[in-house]
Amino acid sequence: MGRTANWCQDCLHYWFDYETPKTLVIPDIALGCVFRFTQLLVVLYVVGYVCVMQKAYQETDSVISSVTTKVKGFASTNTSDMEPLFWDVADYVIPPQGDSSFFVLTNMVVTSKQTQTRCPEFPGPSTTCVDDCDCIEGLSDPRGSGIQTGLCDNYSSTVQTCEVLSWCPLEIDTKLPEPALLAAAENFTVLIKNSITYPKFKFHRRNIVPHINSSYLKRCEFSHSTDPDCPIFRLKHIVSEAGEDFQEMAVKGGVIGIIIDWSCDLDSWAGKCYPKYSFRRLDDRHPVGNVAPGYNFRFAKYYKTPDEEDTRTLIKAYGIRFDVIVFGTAGKFGIVPTIVNMGAALSFLSLVPLVCDWFLLTCTRKRDLYSRHKITYLSDDAEIESMSMGTAYGTQ
Amino acid sequence: MGRTANWCQDCLHYWFDYETPKTLVIPDIALGCVFRFTQLLVVLYVVGYVCVMQKAYQETDSVISSVTTKVKGFASTNTSDMEPLFWDVADYVIPPQGDSSFFVLTNMVVTSKQTQTRCPEFPGPSTTCVDDCDCIEGLSDPRGSGIQTGLCDNYSSTVQTCEVLSWCPLEIDTKLPEPALLAAAENFTVLIKNSITYPKFKFHRRNIVPHINSSYLKRCEFSHSTDPDCPIFRLKHIVSEAGEDFQEMAVKGGVIGIIIDWSCDLDSWAGKCYPKYSFRRLDDRHPVGNVAPGYNFRFAKYYKTPDEEDTRTLIKAYGIRFDVIVFGTAGKFGIVPTIVNMGAALSFLSLVPLVCDWFLLTCTRKRDLYSRHKITYLSDDAEIESMSMGTAYGTQ
Amino acid sequence: MGRTANWCQDCLHYWFDYETPKTLVIPDIALGCVFRFTQLLVVLYVVGYVCVMQKAYQETDSVISSVTTKVKGFASTNTSDMEPLFWDVADYVIPPQGDSSFFVLTNMVVTSKQTQTRCPEFPGPSTTCVDDCDCIEGLSDPRGSGIQTGLCDNYSSTVQTCEVLSWCPLEIDTKLPEPALLAAAENFTVLIKNSITYPKFKFHRRNIVPHINSSYLKRCEFSHSTDPDCPIFRLKHIVSEAGEDFQEMAVKGGVIGIIIDWSCDLDSWAGKCYPKYSFRRLDDRHPVGNVAPGYNFRFAKYYKTPDEEDTRTLIKAYGIRFDVIVFGTAGKFGIVPTIVNMGAALSFLSLVPLVCDWFLLTCTRKRDLYSRHKITYLSDDAEIESMSMGTAYGTQ
Repeated sequence: MGRTANWCQDCLHYWFDYETPKTLVIPDIALGCVFRFTQLLVVLYVVGYVCVMQKAYQETDSVISSVTTKVKGFASTNTSDMEPLFWDVADYVIPPQGDSSFFVLTNMVVTSKQTQTRCPEFPGPSTTCVDDCDCIEGLSDPRGSGIQTGLCDNYSSTVQTCEVLSWCPLEIDTKLPEPALLAAAENFTVLIKNSITYPKFKFHRRNIVPHINSSYLKRCEFSHSTDPDCPIFRLKHIVSEAGEDFQEMAVKGGVIGIIIDWSCDLDSWAGKCYPKYSFRRLDDRHPVGNVAPGYNFRFAKYYKTPDEEDTRTLIKAYGIRFDVIVFGTAGKFGIVPTIVNMGAALSFLSLVPLVCDWFLLTCTRKRDLYSRHKITYLSDDAEIESMSMGTAYGTQ
Repeated sequence: MGRTANWCQDCLHYWFDYETPKTLVIPDIALGCVFRFTQLLVVLYVVGYVCVMQKAYQETDSVISSVTTKVKGFASTNTSDMEPLFWDVADYVIPPQGDSSFFVLTNMVVTSKQTQTRCPEFPGPSTTCVDDCDCIEGLSDPRGSGIQTGLCDNYSSTVQTCEVLSWCPLEIDTKLPEPALLAAAENFTVLIKNSITYPKFKFHRRNIVPHINSSYLKRCEFSHSTDPDCPIFRLKHIVSEAGEDFQEMAVKGGVIGIIIDWSCDLDSWAGKCYPKYSFRRLDDRHPVGNVAPGYNFRFAKYYKTPDEEDTRTLIKAYGIRFDVIVFGTAGKFGIVPTIVNMGAALSFLSLVPLVCDWFLLTCTRKRDLYSRHKITYLSDDAEIESMSMGTAYGTQ
Repeated sequence: MGRTANWCQDCLHYWFDYETPKTLVIPDIALGCVFRFTQLLVVLYVVGYVCVMQKAYQETDSVISSVTTKVKGFASTNTSDMEPLFWDVADYVIPPQGDSSFFVLTNMVVTSKQTQTRCPEFPGPSTTCVDDCDCIEGLSDPRGSGIQTGLCDNYSSTVQTCEVLSWCPLEIDTKLPEPALLAAAENFTVLIKNSITYPKFKFHRRNIVPHINSSYLKRCEFSHSTDPDCPIFRLKHIVSEAGEDFQEMAVKGGVIGIIIDWSCDLDSWAGKCYPKYSFRRLDDRHPVGNVAPGYNFRFAKYYKTPDEEDTRTLIKAYGIRFDVIVFGTAGKFGIVPTIVNMGAALSFLSLVPLVCDWFLLTCTRKRDLYSRHKITYLSDDAEIESMSMGTAYGTQ
């Protein structure tokens, strides 16, 4: 035989000779029980807990969502400050489009007929003056109401303050109507339409589930216990579910989250994938050091007077902003997480023989016998011995 | 030798003696083939499928995005109800800022010159009356149009209804213009600018890819087949790609999702990371029981009459809301998922010998011979035997 | 013994006989060191790097967030084009509600007293005309300003252009005020209130951390170095942190991302979970081919003239849109990822004996001796031999 042939044969042997460990079978019922029981424990834990309970065999995807809201209801106000007014959706919902975040006006400070002129500032340590020298022309104090003109003017019969260039008359927002002007807003309802997608699974769904019919939708109102599928919410109910009192909140405003949880297991029949609603106040009820409590913003309606002058009605709007927050994770059987998790399980099974061998060699009655048969200790003596004799191994 | 030295030596032996399984090499070509083939299968499956196809070696991150939109186009309306009107972007895009969600007005019911007064309700089972006793002062029916004043008034020459305090004249929204007023909106175009970030990988990108030049951008229009990179979309094209008819949808409105998929593989040259656009109708085309079909909202423009009275023009706006929805997951080689997945693969490789041993001991011709050499059955006889003789092992 | 009993015993043996590999212990200090050292390396790598540094033992969850913003500040403008004006929040913040995305007006082109009439187009290659035949009635050029009436009109004393139906006078937006009108906007401040939730861990938090008190909040201003917890940001500071110049950006507008990173490790004491702010320009500073640079949109204020005609003031608003982008991933010890990662680690440990066996059989001095003891080569001779003698195994 040539050299190459030899090399080839070696290579073939290397690749296709099967090498398998020699094993010792011990017919010990106690040991066998320990072995099988440990295996069972690992399988139960990994398969039972990790796979079945934690659903680790699933691929996951995050929800993408689109929300449409529509508020209904009207109210009237009749206070001494203002003439009687009627309020409908176009008046109190800002912005009007019905996005996932909508604001319902509940209280306000209205400053009518503001024009761009000059007027004396509110009295304060830095604004009171005796004569024009106390006022600096062009000074724009961030805490003030406008840009000083350098003149000192009569604020009232007793107080003189610096004159400012601003929208005059200045807004007086210290006296907030209590109870809130639109206290009746608690009876408004909102219809929330929510369409979601799990792009990875090409799964689409809406919160108006198919099995509810039109007549139900016309009269229903959401309630966790009786109507959990109804997409129409009474504002008072939302606020009270969030642990707040509507009337109290209406005065200074606040932010309420309408949280829709679309966590779904898409392996079973898809009909099980329903939205779960919950409600939570998102701003601080008792803010740290009372910094900017509640929720308000200013907006203006602009008019032109008959003589073409710009005037505006400034509204400091207090109210409740509702943020519809949609979240969720869908799981569906996936080959990659299954393989990874089964691989991990197998790894743990490979620990079981280690445990059993330790038990075998330390805890069993016949441990010396087992040890002698299982383990060959290659001592120096044995080496010499094995040099002289060809077939006698394993003397310990 | 002292006791401590002994203990130390034991310890040293325990830690640094190397224990290795005794193995049996079987030069059986069939068995070798089964062994290598099974190994190959596992490697192919795990490495080929899990790693290469499913990219399980990658870390992932979710996209964060910012969207700017700009609609262009104008239209004119000329119906018998209204005087001829010209419409540009400032008139029909609400809100005007060009956020990720924008609304294009296509149809509307306009109620001009509303003032806060009293007027008779629309006739209906609960609103028709014979005299003032049928009307309850202060009643605010959610299905009505205002707050009843307690008076019964002539709605027409034949019908009397309860008078309400409201914005009068009341809106009549039963007769919707068909075809839609701004049917011409189908030719409007929208430029979508989208900037994304994968924060974990510090990867930023825009949907206006660098290789397209200014002159192309000025004349291009998105099309899946011919111009997949152009960020300018014709509204009609968007709607038809979503499987809808613009003219039909324009009448009652709807919600269309412009979905930008930024799924990226950042391992290869980054230039491969491009946005993929798709379009889908997000609201229900045929809603369950016809509840609130389409998409509309009410908003008002407020005016002051020369004698300082507040009037408003109420607009019930029907149209298409376009939601630009950006999603995506980027993957990039990561050490942790690679290790976890290779670990899982290794686990599966450890299954291969089990399979082959089973094959060896049941399916091969010489299985008895192999079994005798591989497995030592520690019978009670053997125990006794091994008691008497020190070096003869493994009698079966 | 009956057949069934036999079968049962076989079965019992099969299940409860413990099979364990025979091992050879080699008291070679070098080999032992290699073995332990390789084990140590794997453990250090997997446990140290994967688990401790990459926190692979944690379950993760994505943040859901709600943002409220409030801008403060005022400015005055005094240019030759316009009368002196005073600007406050209600004038320059659009939309006014204080959402996560807000726009601060910095520059504008105002076109007052637009009414729906007819006026000559701007001169251009396709709009100049000599007589009415050059103008097509009803033509609506997307690059034009309105719908052509078919008449040719005097644009100036020298140029005649086609007449269009539009909001007239037409907007002239070629001359943009520079420096920006509201250059003073750089000194405006914005208070950002951000409330986050990790729904999987039921963890809620706000960016106004409890340990800062009210008096601090009243005077503080965000700065990475001195006030990293202050939720009040000066616009100029935001823009300069994003690497831009406010005055330059104010002219044509732009989009700035205020990025709040809520990445948290919830295993340690929760107080460590704080927001980290960063700022980045989101639109293209030098857009490709100068296509639509900056950020602007058009909106209108509608008025009625004393004789009930609709007029509007069209404002092309340039300014900076601030997008508050909240992202983050929270990690917390979870049983599933821990098991999966430990499984992967164990798999790698099972590689160590392979390495050491290779070392044993190729690199040690006594490799032949070790090989003879460890590996039994089942040659054909051995088979014959083993046929004739019952107890002599393993001749090589």
